[in-house]
Amino acid sequence: MSETMKAAIFVKPGEMTVEEVPKARVEEPTDAMIRVVRTCVCGSDLWYFRGLSGHAEHSQIGHEAIGVIEEVGSAVESFHVGDFVVVPFPYSCGTCPVCKAGVESCCPHGGYFGANQAEYVRVPEADGTLVKVPGSPEDYDDATLASLLTISDVMSTGYHAAVSAEVKAGDTAVVMGDGAVGLCGVIAAKMLGATRIIAMSRHEDRAALAREFGATDVVAERDQEAVDKVLAMTGGYGADAVLECVGSKQSFDTAVGLARAGAVIGRVGLPHDVTISAEGSFYRNLGIKGGPAPVRHYDLGGLLDAVLNHEIDPGRVFTAEYDLDHIQDAYEDMDQRRVIKSIIRF
Amino acid sequence: MSETMKAAIFVKPGEMTVEEVPKARVEEPTDAMIRVVRTCVCGSDLWYFRGLSGHAEHSQIGHEAIGVIEEVGSAVESFHVGDFVVVPFPYSCGTCPVCKAGVESCCPHGGYFGANQAEYVRVPEADGTLVKVPGSPEDYDDATLASLLTISDVMSTGYHAAVSAEVKAGDTAVVMGDGAVGLCGVIAAKMLGATRIIAMSRHEDRAALAREFGATDVVAERDQEAVDKVLAMTGGYGADAVLECVGSKQSFDTAVGLARAGAVIGRVGLPHDVTISAEGSFYRNLGIKGGPAPVRHYDLGGLLDAVLNHEIDPGRVFTAEYDLDHIQDAYEDMDQRRVIKSIIRF
Repeated sequence: MSETMKAAIFVKPGEMTVEEVPKARVEEPTDAMIRVVRTCVCGSDLWYFRGLSGHAEHSQIGHEAIGVIEEVGSAVESFHVGDFVVVPFPYSCGTCPVCKAGVESCCPHGGYFGANQAEYVRVPEADGTLVKVPGSPEDYDDATLASLLTISDVMSTGYHAAVSAEVKAGDTAVVMGDGAVGLCGVIAAKMLGATRIIAMSRHEDRAALAREFGATDVVAERDQEAVDKVLAMTGGYGADAVLECVGSKQSFDTAVGLARAGAVIGRVGLPHDVTISAEGSFYRNLGIKGGPAPVRHYDLGGLLDAVLNHEIDPGRVFTAEYDLDHIQDAYEDMDQRRVIKSIIRF
Repeated sequence: MSETMKAAIFVKPGEMTVEEVPKARVEEPTDAMIRVVRTCVCGSDLWYFRGLSGHAEHSQIGHEAIGVIEEVGSAVESFHVGDFVVVPFPYSCGTCPVCKAGVESCCPHGGYFGANQAEYVRVPEADGTLVKVPGSPEDYDDATLASLLTISDVMSTGYHAAVSAEVKAGDTAVVMGDGAVGLCGVIAAKMLGATRIIAMSRHEDRAALAREFGATDVVAERDQEAVDKVLAMTGGYGADAVLECVGSKQSFDTAVGLARAGAVIGRVGLPHDVTISAEGSFYRNLGIKGGPAPVRHYDLGGLLDAVLNHEIDPGRVFTAEYDLDHIQDAYEDMDQRRVIKSIIRF
């Protein structure tokens, strides 16, 4: 009889549960299998939980994790049993032209994780996917583990927004979205040298954290009022860079409205019903860049070190902790905005 | 009685003429007035000539020019009577945050020229607009004057496509459009280090010039066939950078299809009925940048020197020469693709 493990199960919109399912295992020579140390709930999981996007009912879910390797396939060369690793939400071959261009999140030989809210996770293409952390989980305190978990997705995604928006030293950057990604976007904008960081937030707890992360201003207005306010704050010219961390048409249109001519909108919010008017953006030389974050590219390119050196502290986006058995609470509390982001410990 | 000058007049689609009109003059203290030495017909003028875009009937037209300053307003500081200058197609204040960010073509205090196919041109915001050329027109041969004329628009626009597409050393770049801008885009892609340059062209004369400018491959196919061909040429991954120098929906969709995940489409073709699917481009991390070229930024940033040092020879896009009295022929020959681009000498 095969082994089992506990896993979060998406029953239907609004309902999560935990069940025993067949334990994740190495299936291909290039796989690794990880014992999960921390996982969490993503804003994009809430799209399913709220019934706004489709997800197979009664199926596993989750794409963020850090953990320890329990088993490696025969073809895995760079990782070994016992290694402590970050599991980026996309898996990738690491060797094709797309990966070599630093866009691992679009590797045609890769894909996205979708069963990481569980005790164990199968990692395809382990060599091209995982990010090694020195030592073992026991060497780190809870705060550092939380920050390490963010570089499996939200911190890397916020960073992708800032890089895509081409934030540079001295810029005024606007961050659309005060979820965990937007808050990490504030950290990222600061890392890239923005001197004025305007966080769009109408939630006191999130606005406060945004300020602690480096936001110099908070704008609670929306739509044309938000545009007017940012224009007034920038002498009428608009923001040098915009991090679009929501994905709604409302947010995107606001981003276009408050961007300076020639600015780039770095978008990482999954687009929902967004259409881009080619003409409107053309005459203002507005750029649009972004997509799923190439997590591994950024983790190896500096984010892992920034966390380990305590230069950044993105784990603070986790404002409540749960065990896997309380996965329903972890979703519900985030859905109801009682917490910014829910972390699951094992 | 006020002085007059000869000017090209757009009578209606398909019909150009030349008439005596009031001579251009300094109207504001920040103006200069230029005697035109060379002007030309732009692909965008053909949109009017073909009746595909609206243009006021019986009005002046044209936005490309080089010339000699005849008069300056009292507030002009950097230019003097007798200076030889390139007149970029946008005028700009040169001092606001948009101009300082290098996006002079979107200066909120500026605009576009529209009466440059004439003996004399009024230049608003002369200090922030003009580009000084050493010496006088008599110091240069016809070929160099032609190349200087291209950096009032098409060469700078092709360069903007390449910069916007983020072409870098070693890239495979695709250039959509074999008009003068696309051909200049080939030159620009080569300047930025692309080692494989695929020109999309189905006209023998243009394809030949593209090859002389640095194209390593020419693809005559369109739509899905073009996508398939470029994918086959790039191991199935797509082009690292795409210069979209047409502006039609057909061209844009092809650009999206043949771009590598993570590539940026640098667009300079005036968009006509182009809608960008936010979701389709998001998951492939496709970027879209570009718009009206900040001509002065690029001219002062290297294009003027590249022309004067004969490193580039973009004036070769002019394959026929006319005097202003033959403006109808200049438009018709270009419309019928008998010439690539028509130059007008005085």
